Amino acid sequence: MISVDLNSDLGESFGHFKIGNDEELLRCISSANIACGFHAGDHNVMMRTVELAKKFDVAIGAHPGLNDLAGFGRRELKVSPEEVYNMVVYQIGALQAVAASKGMKLNHVKPHGALYNMAEKDKALAEAIAQAVKDVDESLILYGLSGGVLCRAGEKIGLTVAHEVFADRTYQPDGTLTSRSEKNAIIHDPEEAVERVLRMVKEGKVAAINGHDIPIQADTICIHGDGPKALAFAEALKSKLEEENIRIVNPGAKKDERNIVS
Amino acid sequence: MISVDLNSDLGESFGHFKIGNDEELLRCISSANIACGFHAGDHNVMMRTVELAKKFDVAIGAHPGLNDLAGFGRRELKVSPEEVYNMVVYQIGALQAVAASKGMKLNHVKPHGALYNMAEKDKALAEAIAQAVKDVDESLILYGLSGGVLCRAGEKIGLTVAHEVFADRTYQPDGTLTSRSEKNAIIHDPEEAVERVLRMVKEGKVAAINGHDIPIQADTICIHGDGPKALAFAEALKSKLEEENIRIVNPGAKKDERNIVS
Amino acid sequence: MISVDLNSDLGESFGHFKIGNDEELLRCISSANIACGFHAGDHNVMMRTVELAKKFDVAIGAHPGLNDLAGFGRRELKVSPEEVYNMVVYQIGALQAVAASKGMKLNHVKPHGALYNMAEKDKALAEAIAQAVKDVDESLILYGLSGGVLCRAGEKIGLTVAHEVFADRTYQPDGTLTSRSEKNAIIHDPEEAVERVLRMVKEGKVAAINGHDIPIQADTICIHGDGPKALAFAEALKSKLEEENIRIVNPGAKKDERNIVS
Amino acid sequence: MISVDLNSDLGESFGHFKIGNDEELLRCISSANIACGFHAGDHNVMMRTVELAKKFDVAIGAHPGLNDLAGFGRRELKVSPEEVYNMVVYQIGALQAVAASKGMKLNHVKPHGALYNMAEKDKALAEAIAQAVKDVDESLILYGLSGGVLCRAGEKIGLTVAHEVFADRTYQPDGTLTSRSEKNAIIHDPEEAVERVLRMVKEGKVAAINGHDIPIQADTICIHGDGPKALAFAEALKSKLEEENIRIVNPGAKKDERNIVS
Repeated sequence: MISVDLNSDLGESFGHFKIGNDEELLRCISSANIACGFHAGDHNVMMRTVELAKKFDVAIGAHPGLNDLAGFGRRELKVSPEEVYNMVVYQIGALQAVAASKGMKLNHVKPHGALYNMAEKDKALAEAIAQAVKDVDESLILYGLSGGVLCRAGEKIGLTVAHEVFADRTYQPDGTLTSRSEKNAIIHDPEEAVERVLRMVKEGKVAAINGHDIPIQADTICIHGDGPKALAFAEALKSKLEEENIRIVNPGAKKDERNIVS
Repeated sequence: MISVDLNSDLGESFGHFKIGNDEELLRCISSANIACGFHAGDHNVMMRTVELAKKFDVAIGAHPGLNDLAGFGRRELKVSPEEVYNMVVYQIGALQAVAASKGMKLNHVKPHGALYNMAEKDKALAEAIAQAVKDVDESLILYGLSGGVLCRAGEKIGLTVAHEVFADRTYQPDGTLTSRSEKNAIIHDPEEAVERVLRMVKEGKVAAINGHDIPIQADTICIHGDGPKALAFAEALKSKLEEENIRIVNPGAKKDERNIVS
Repeated sequence: MISVDLNSDLGESFGHFKIGNDEELLRCISSANIACGFHAGDHNVMMRTVELAKKFDVAIGAHPGLNDLAGFGRRELKVSPEEVYNMVVYQIGALQAVAASKGMKLNHVKPHGALYNMAEKDKALAEAIAQAVKDVDESLILYGLSGGVLCRAGEKIGLTVAHEVFADRTYQPDGTLTSRSEKNAIIHDPEEAVERVLRMVKEGKVAAINGHDIPIQADTICIHGDGPKALAFAEALKSKLEEENIRIVNPGAKKDERNIVS
Repeated sequence: MISVDLNSDLGESFGHFKIGNDEELLRCISSANIACGFHAGDHNVMMRTVELAKKFDVAIGAHPGLNDLAGFGRRELKVSPEEVYNMVVYQIGALQAVAASKGMKLNHVKPHGALYNMAEKDKALAEAIAQAVKDVDESLILYGLSGGVLCRAGEKIGLTVAHEVFADRTYQPDGTLTSRSEKNAIIHDPEEAVERVLRMVKEGKVAAINGHDIPIQADTICIHGDGPKALAFAEALKSKLEEENIRIVNPGAKKDERNIVS
């Protein structure tokens, strides 16, 4: 049976400031990336989000970001690999303890926003992230852009890696995402997006921007939580995957299964 | 052989802002309370401080504080027990991961500044702190005011507790510290301070402000790191303790020893 | 012709975090209290909010708060009068410059949340706020709890003061607000709330919690912007006031009129 | 009589964190760039620094920076020109009010750290800074890299501009500073540095890194406040300038003088 993970960014509220439809999204996804207090989230929000994920039996992971609440971690900041290593270690640890206090364990780590993008452009940053994950807990799964620099950095040091694809983004012939500054970066038609996901999951292929198919590994699909149509899309995708007998399950569970089988 | 712990607040720098004589203090103390990024410290400072403590073979503990960098965690803030629980869990976890990345484990937790003081005035806050420590790692030792509300809260739920005394502060007949707003709150003569510490450690007694002796448990002595004479005092106290054949050792090591003996 | 001011807290978004219905509220009110980046708001939000207020021809004022974004400025923090003076000066200045860049001037200052409440309980804090307003620009109008400590502090040093009343709160026989921790602190029936406002504005009277009328000066009415029914209430109140021929106008405009008349 | 301005960054402490030798530096300089709470400084530090500058009769200016206390405003952050405009307006305003409360007025604005450097690389950011200064108070003098992008942006919209030179930095043949990442970026010999300054001030020339003289306008000289030898260098430079009959005076005073003469 084919399976795939659906992941989404959760716990992005901060103090009095509320963001997202966490409870609704948790009904659709198999892994939750939880903000750790740097770009969003705080210790109270993290506690509530872990509790909620537990209730819905969704795997949790750290979503470490740049220490830039004002910019929601989306603005590039010049940081050294050493600083990135330290900030990822810190944020994973904070969420680990929150999870421990609720009797839960972390499943994965996915860098957020600018940190995710910077890792694709700077190998040293990618390696710093991967090493931080390994040094804190080498059983954590690293989520990164499918076929990208971060995934390679994780694989190189022996981490289990989940290759992430985007339902609503177009791809260049070399497998990188079309930059958001380009006109055709986003797929607006939800049906087209669902079809593309199905093909990525079932055939390991996607049509690049030039029309030619490229191979792509789709271990996990990023589900956006914001925007008016985000939730409807998540539900539609979930239904379609189930209809096609594709199991929605986080890579940690898959790994366990494989272990049992072998 | 009698033993006592010397603890000091370390890792209180922040970014470009430097505070303290961490390296010099580490030569004198047996346990370091490391700021966790809320009232002071940051992920980079924490990493360097853990490394330094490792080099000097000093036990490390989390020093969680209020999220008030501007006030250095010294200003009372109205927070609920739930919020205190969450912030203590978060900060312990952050330091745990930093320590893990250096192959170290935490020895203890000591709340910082206003949080330490608020716990003595509000039992619900003290219980929240103790529960947070227990839920993250019940082997962690809780440091609190000797004979105070926090220590009792820790003991009640089965934590190992270290009763902390202050070399340079006077005590009320009921065992509480004389408020800093009072004239005679501070002992300015270093020799008198050293003598008082010796008596607390060896006899379990201290003269209260009214001249009468009161019983006091001195598991750990707080060594201040700031101020022009702080380091000299730390060194003088260490010498005197050694001269008196009192072993300077953190309560975690003591616990291990007892385990070996029994 | 009788007149009254309707004020509301605006510009409380922060970065990516959106709060409030500023545009809709601006159709109902005559003065906007704009957050200044300490408890909420930031330089970008302030710029947009000033622009919006200009478009709707609504008077603007600074809404300085405690430097506690995580607590939205609603948590009491132990601060000295000197610190309060400095933080109020800073925040007024920041908004003054934002306003100047849009060709606007500030009309008033209203402390936010815990700062507003702390001023009613501590005269030294109230005096620090009033002095800060005076030292930055003595033509600014100070908004405070009707008949309260802050208003008296402002009047004492010659500031123009606007006595503020609350439509949805009950009053004690001594004119103070019933604490939110009491059961009967809030008036839930919007019609009753409107009737009470009308009486405060037209007769200068309100029924205290014990049923007896007390005198009350209603220069400005606080309109809450949050909550699902906030906007509907604001619109209902505005309609009713207009129906009763009560002019909705900020105290600055009133002051100018009086000047012209006399 | 030839004159030149000596400027230095002051008020860079934050809360409990102390930085700099502000009082000693104020004896040497003619204009103080005061941090405005974004990259360093806070409302309390600003108030004390303005007071101190007043005592020493030194002109004050705003030193706006990126909102990055953790990085001391020295790390490049991707920000839009609009955001830069808003943050500069905000910070100037905050300091204006602090100054007003002490009966002082601002003399100038000098962007800090990464913001200063980013303006030299991105004309749109330079124009945003210049426009912000103009829109808040067009009499403010803009300090920027001598002959650089920011100075040109200021001149273009009619601001008075002070061309800034660095005593301890080397210059490229095109007049830009040698990057700090290059070996020969810094002049370590204080006597050589003083000689270079004298030549820049008296002859308007400096030897570029290739040995050839280039023209340079030296309206103001940046004096570093940090580092063990900073203060000694400032004093040496001041003595030498006075010995050479060069008046140390801020450009605002010079402007006034010129006005009187003409």
